[in-house]
Amino acid sequence: MPTCVYIESLVDHVDSDVVIKGWLYNKRSSGKIAFLELRDGTGLVQGVVVRGKVDDEVWNAVEEIGQESSVIVTGRVKADARAPSGVELGVSAMEVVQAVDGYPITPKEHGTEFLMDRRHLWLRSSQQHAVLRVRSKLEKLCRDYFYERGYTLVDSPILTPLSVEGTTTLFSTDYFGRPAYLTQSGQLYQEAGAMAFGKAFCFGPTFRAEKSKTRRHLTEFWMLEPEIAYATIDDVMDIAEDFVATVIQRALVECDAELTSLDRDRAPLEQITAPFPRVHYDEAVKLLQEAGEDFAWGSDFGAGHETLISEHFGKPVFINRFPTKIKPFYMEPDAERPDLVLGCDLIAPEGYGELIGGGQRIHDPALLESRLAEHGLPAEPYQWYMDLRRYGTVPHAGFGMGLERLVAWVTGRPHLRETIPFPRMLGRLEP
Amino acid sequence: MPTCVYIESLVDHVDSDVVIKGWLYNKRSSGKIAFLELRDGTGLVQGVVVRGKVDDEVWNAVEEIGQESSVIVTGRVKADARAPSGVELGVSAMEVVQAVDGYPITPKEHGTEFLMDRRHLWLRSSQQHAVLRVRSKLEKLCRDYFYERGYTLVDSPILTPLSVEGTTTLFSTDYFGRPAYLTQSGQLYQEAGAMAFGKAFCFGPTFRAEKSKTRRHLTEFWMLEPEIAYATIDDVMDIAEDFVATVIQRALVECDAELTSLDRDRAPLEQITAPFPRVHYDEAVKLLQEAGEDFAWGSDFGAGHETLISEHFGKPVFINRFPTKIKPFYMEPDAERPDLVLGCDLIAPEGYGELIGGGQRIHDPALLESRLAEHGLPAEPYQWYMDLRRYGTVPHAGFGMGLERLVAWVTGRPHLRETIPFPRMLGRLEP
Repeated sequence: MPTCVYIESLVDHVDSDVVIKGWLYNKRSSGKIAFLELRDGTGLVQGVVVRGKVDDEVWNAVEEIGQESSVIVTGRVKADARAPSGVELGVSAMEVVQAVDGYPITPKEHGTEFLMDRRHLWLRSSQQHAVLRVRSKLEKLCRDYFYERGYTLVDSPILTPLSVEGTTTLFSTDYFGRPAYLTQSGQLYQEAGAMAFGKAFCFGPTFRAEKSKTRRHLTEFWMLEPEIAYATIDDVMDIAEDFVATVIQRALVECDAELTSLDRDRAPLEQITAPFPRVHYDEAVKLLQEAGEDFAWGSDFGAGHETLISEHFGKPVFINRFPTKIKPFYMEPDAERPDLVLGCDLIAPEGYGELIGGGQRIHDPALLESRLAEHGLPAEPYQWYMDLRRYGTVPHAGFGMGLERLVAWVTGRPHLRETIPFPRMLGRLEP
Repeated sequence: MPTCVYIESLVDHVDSDVVIKGWLYNKRSSGKIAFLELRDGTGLVQGVVVRGKVDDEVWNAVEEIGQESSVIVTGRVKADARAPSGVELGVSAMEVVQAVDGYPITPKEHGTEFLMDRRHLWLRSSQQHAVLRVRSKLEKLCRDYFYERGYTLVDSPILTPLSVEGTTTLFSTDYFGRPAYLTQSGQLYQEAGAMAFGKAFCFGPTFRAEKSKTRRHLTEFWMLEPEIAYATIDDVMDIAEDFVATVIQRALVECDAELTSLDRDRAPLEQITAPFPRVHYDEAVKLLQEAGEDFAWGSDFGAGHETLISEHFGKPVFINRFPTKIKPFYMEPDAERPDLVLGCDLIAPEGYGELIGGGQRIHDPALLESRLAEHGLPAEPYQWYMDLRRYGTVPHAGFGMGLERLVAWVTGRPHLRETIPFPRMLGRLEP
């Protein structure tokens, strides 16, 4: 009985007989010879079936089965320099586990809603498969970056009694008779983590009940949030810069096959190396105004502004020190400019928008207390957060990165819906 | 200016002057010499301050500051074979960032509710710190195990339109005018993942609105769920066995310092090697009855039964092939015994209960459809799941492991509430 192997390891079995358990991805047949494109989730390989060299019932099955039929194929691995996988399979036998007729996703073009309704099947298509393999690898690269540098993974809770990013985009649930909210960010809990572990991070799902339906909005998305005790805004820009440059360079190596399959232009990614430009908010405003934009000091940047700024530099760009009134209550004021806070956003190039938001947090208890009041936030639910300033407060800083934006950028996908296995958006809760 | 270092790397700086940024964990003073136990989140080190050898204001500060005061300490690193860290610090200067008086968690005993209300601070205590460092490392070991074996991480969604484990323990939310549920398990989505990627896994938060308040219940917990195409119940027991044995053996190495600090007896963990006993449900029932338990064939095991069975073997034990009526709709029937399904549970030793639940899933579309109906489940929301049987169905299997149970077992903690940074339970949503 030949060994059962995965397609990704076929190159190690040249000139051997093997068994592949997978699915028919595509086929062409001349009546005498059939080419089966086979997939098993780890790769694609072409199986060659020659009429007369296999049993008649195998040949008949080959003629009959449709796309996504599940098949167990036995054959001899042959080196083939022309094949993307480097090998092809000379088929000697085939068992049909299930013959499929009428698989809904064909190589022709389908509408987005049609494909999104069949997301559970669409995942099998080579482009979606490649995007999500990149996502899987990027998650590992992101976690490894922080593990290798001594951070402790401190999972922030999903169910929380309070809101971090304002109350208008909260999902709520009945928690045994009282309201609970799905977290919008794990940051406040990472601040407790940083005080306990020095360097902490979380990486999990977060939620925003966004009523907007744009290519940049998901209601459920994964966020990576490191937080560091005794760190300043400058430290956090150093860390975010090294993190992004390191992950992108490693991704170019680790995701080489997927980027090829996606036909992603690597040149813009290859130039992502530290340092990244750091632009003061005032400068960014000036830059927009000089470019002819009708943008007033004190406003927040929209997607178009971000693209304009990043195109000016051709690299990720930090915008830092924002007007106090457009940022959350917890941001440390700029000692030199009381109208500004020590926040920093990293704008990705190629129009992928804000990748990272972060900055230095208020560590002075009296100041934090007055900011809570100024923002009209109730004091009681924040008492535990205030405790972090009462008992050994230190300057600290951190950032949050949306995983889906990183995946979109690396894979070159314009819409976030393709960067997560089962996207949740306004009007989409299925499959 | 001496280098700023983390305590965990002090051993690399013997006979050098360094700066440590951290907190006062404890202190003793004789009036002439003071011993400061310092923490920075990466470890503990003793700082020795000699009156007259430091400025008077440093000595006065040392006398005054209380537990959890934040301090920046400069000193000379000295090798000290008696110290757990291998070094101590001869303090030459200290800057008090914040002097703290009245930190609520003192070395004396506190009640559980008192500590749980202060979980954001309790994380700093050495035992809790060690448990959560183990959790962080175990998460990496678990993910690495599957990454190293070619699995693709496919994040299952949290917000879902349907229930997996029954409808009585669901948290629901208003999703733009329609109900959505917090996922109880990512399995159904991993089945789609297995068909697309061959081998898939997810590792994220799951939810059960459990009204029971026991040491084994959390309402929010993390679950690891691998799923494999073309796999059977025997494959899944092989994989789960190798996974558990590998992770435990690696954890003994990676978490050595933490297990010492927790005073965890390593002997029972050292003997966790494959193979694990595999006990048929019928045998398990017999074993309980022979032990004098009033247990009827067809019932499900309680915590006490699990402990009894695992004590009989002193190793993790698989119980396999359960009565159909006590298991979920998706379980593959046993071809030889139609009253049983191909499920398997792995019971941890030392009374830690069910660590893993898994088995082979139904792949025949007609059978799955009839099982849905028998369980009174609505057909429409499961149409996408049925699609996985219509388009290239194959035998497949997988399992789910609760992370907190693994952490409890490895660290020897009796209650799950100490195995997650911010536990959520009946009556507990804070901090």
